[in-house]
Amino acid sequence: MKDEKIDAIFNPKSVALIGASNKEGKMGYVFAKNIIDGYRGKIYMVNPSEEQVFGLKCYPDVRSIPDSIDLAVIVIPAKAVPKVMEELAEKGTKAAVVITAGFSEAGPEGKKLEEEMMVAANKGKIKVVGPNCFGIYNCNIGLNASLGVGTPPQGGDISFVTQSGAYGMAIFAFALDHHMKFAKIMAHGNKAGIEDYEILRYLGEDDETKVICLFLESVNKGREFLEEAKKITPKKPIVATKTGRTAGAARAAASHTAALAGSFTAYEAAFKQSGIIFARNGMDLINIAKGLDWQPLPRGPRVGIITNSGGTGVELADLCEEAGLVVPELSEETQEKIRELIPPYASSRNPVDMTPVWPKFVELYSKIIKILYESSEIDIIIPIILQRAAMMPEVCQAVADTVNQCLASDRKKPTYVCWVSVRSAQGNMDILQKNRVPCYDWPERTARAVGAIYGYVEFLKRRAISFEGR
Amino acid sequence: MKDEKIDAIFNPKSVALIGASNKEGKMGYVFAKNIIDGYRGKIYMVNPSEEQVFGLKCYPDVRSIPDSIDLAVIVIPAKAVPKVMEELAEKGTKAAVVITAGFSEAGPEGKKLEEEMMVAANKGKIKVVGPNCFGIYNCNIGLNASLGVGTPPQGGDISFVTQSGAYGMAIFAFALDHHMKFAKIMAHGNKAGIEDYEILRYLGEDDETKVICLFLESVNKGREFLEEAKKITPKKPIVATKTGRTAGAARAAASHTAALAGSFTAYEAAFKQSGIIFARNGMDLINIAKGLDWQPLPRGPRVGIITNSGGTGVELADLCEEAGLVVPELSEETQEKIRELIPPYASSRNPVDMTPVWPKFVELYSKIIKILYESSEIDIIIPIILQRAAMMPEVCQAVADTVNQCLASDRKKPTYVCWVSVRSAQGNMDILQKNRVPCYDWPERTARAVGAIYGYVEFLKRRAISFEGR
Repeated sequence: MKDEKIDAIFNPKSVALIGASNKEGKMGYVFAKNIIDGYRGKIYMVNPSEEQVFGLKCYPDVRSIPDSIDLAVIVIPAKAVPKVMEELAEKGTKAAVVITAGFSEAGPEGKKLEEEMMVAANKGKIKVVGPNCFGIYNCNIGLNASLGVGTPPQGGDISFVTQSGAYGMAIFAFALDHHMKFAKIMAHGNKAGIEDYEILRYLGEDDETKVICLFLESVNKGREFLEEAKKITPKKPIVATKTGRTAGAARAAASHTAALAGSFTAYEAAFKQSGIIFARNGMDLINIAKGLDWQPLPRGPRVGIITNSGGTGVELADLCEEAGLVVPELSEETQEKIRELIPPYASSRNPVDMTPVWPKFVELYSKIIKILYESSEIDIIIPIILQRAAMMPEVCQAVADTVNQCLASDRKKPTYVCWVSVRSAQGNMDILQKNRVPCYDWPERTARAVGAIYGYVEFLKRRAISFEGR
Repeated sequence: MKDEKIDAIFNPKSVALIGASNKEGKMGYVFAKNIIDGYRGKIYMVNPSEEQVFGLKCYPDVRSIPDSIDLAVIVIPAKAVPKVMEELAEKGTKAAVVITAGFSEAGPEGKKLEEEMMVAANKGKIKVVGPNCFGIYNCNIGLNASLGVGTPPQGGDISFVTQSGAYGMAIFAFALDHHMKFAKIMAHGNKAGIEDYEILRYLGEDDETKVICLFLESVNKGREFLEEAKKITPKKPIVATKTGRTAGAARAAASHTAALAGSFTAYEAAFKQSGIIFARNGMDLINIAKGLDWQPLPRGPRVGIITNSGGTGVELADLCEEAGLVVPELSEETQEKIRELIPPYASSRNPVDMTPVWPKFVELYSKIIKILYESSEIDIIIPIILQRAAMMPEVCQAVADTVNQCLASDRKKPTYVCWVSVRSAQGNMDILQKNRVPCYDWPERTARAVGAIYGYVEFLKRRAISFEGR
């Protein structure tokens, strides 16, 4: 059964904004705007010096709100937070997102404030996100209770938990650039009132979350966290990266390589055992999530590479093998089918190198993808779309259409694009990614993302869990 | 003394285009257009079926050209090439770039043609680039004898040799997007008439080449190549990457991981011993070259990180340490200077985390860069410019100005920017890179490029070679 307090964070019937403001530039203004923008439940503005905020009645304090509150969003100065938390507790508030900074991250005085705040919250059994955090989203109901600008599009499958607000939001912005869609997002800062395993359990049970993404600096209650992960990973993938240690120790950690490396390795090993996909950094994290979300899981490690540049094909083949994948020789039969299409000086071997015959790109990418899709020799297809090919929107459209036609058949097989191009051609990536064909920047990022995805399949295989049809 | 035949490739007094054409879409058209565009020496068009090409007199054959030829550029079909090469030999032509494909890469018949061509070339002591290649540039004299569109801007220091035409040109296009400038470029395809060590020696002696960049699939005469490299690396850096093996063996190589890995490691070790900077892939290659070209060499491994996102700072610190750099604690004295500037909840430790106080970004980036520049505790400065900071052109301008003010002082110290942002903000990178402040995409690529650059400094230190003032 879902944790109803955590559910109140993401699916509140009512939201109270403590510190709402009409003054542009104020936190209370940003949050009022963000919440009103897409959220369709009841909204209560709270601020003793305002009558109305954004046209909504503004209450002088929490007590005056005539109704119960599911979620309180707090943006008032740290010193005032413990008292408000008491009032929220008295009202039976279910959850609170405390954006305000100046708590335990700011020294002993702040630590004391954080403790006082948590005493009040615990007394009222309020689930606290934060303090010192970026906030939360439930994109699928249009709820933006975060510092982020704009409410992301609905219809997302990826839930994303990030301890680092700014870096997390950079990853998130990058993901939006790539047309990824999210379900729930939480940037939980100091993590004073919520354990990592609790949020993990909630997302594990959440039907709208198909892929769980974690950007971690520290892990609270590691044993419980890993136990929870073990229950989830057979059902849905968890991708996680881990940088430094706690925010405070990060600088020290960085100057002690041995300790850091040890910790890294320990995390990597523990994660792997629990079936968590370990991402080496934030960029890999989002790339892996994209591939998991948009394409079916590969049934095996055998990669078929299609390229318009021999050199890039060779580099990608090297890097795929390094990432635990296999780039096998194609059978004479399959090569014969390909040879009928390509110029005589091109190569039907794997990588299939069509050479830069741009007038034939649309036809060749489509037909060769289909041949590899239908071949039992290949589990994963990676077309390299480089330079001239990337500059041709019709090539991108043809690849997107072909991949989705293939996926509509019974036999599921993933395609990931290795994208190598200049800035001016980036717009053509949109054609592919709006059609859920993931594009990765240059061979290394491609190989690493695909290798990590196949690592998850290997985990499922070891546990004898079927991954067909995913 | 410079090899005068190779010099004729890059600095010809006259160029003959064999196969010149007025028909759009033909190779002979592309090359005629490219050569006329920027080259100021004598140009002779050759084609028996044209009277004029692009308004220039067209000769029916090589013999009819009334003058001597320094460089012949050949785009006629493979079968006709050996005979033309004989005629060129009779005329005493110094060098030829053979673009035409269909030679040894296309099977036994092509191999025979290549041998015939080389017999003729060797008889006349013609230096041959190619066949089956993309061509050459000397950007500093506006000579584009390649398939590439447009002549790159003059004033470049980087020379780039690539065996893979298409991938090489993708790297090159990426580099132009990043405002890099080149001296000489050669894509030499089958390498029938030129040894790797010869071109290396030439570039080693070329005063216009400050950084040598090599994208290799195979290395001919490895011992001579490494000997040549050993002579050059104390004077100027060589950056090289190595994928697969020969183009033909690449597919097979990829399916034999052990052999491949062995070969890779062997190359890496041999390169390192000769002081060559080993790049793991094409993207790293160009990133390393950019840092070498635009910034002075670091005197030590101590990195000072300035960030507007704690999480990114931690990730970058981790990755820097992994790349052989050090992210040391700052002295109390230096921290005190920084603390006077930043908000109380920010961090003066290393990474210096100014937090997302965007109204103060311009001031803080500038002042903290200066403090670290003047401090004896730090050898390398890496500002992270993330999201909001990246979206502010005034921040990019301030960083560029500050770096160049600092570099104008006596004490040289490099700055490299870790860039984390969305597509729409990429234009602001131009402000930095036009000012020769290198930007790298996300922490991993940054740490790896800077680590590789410092690896070269370590080589110079081991050999007791001064790198001050570079």
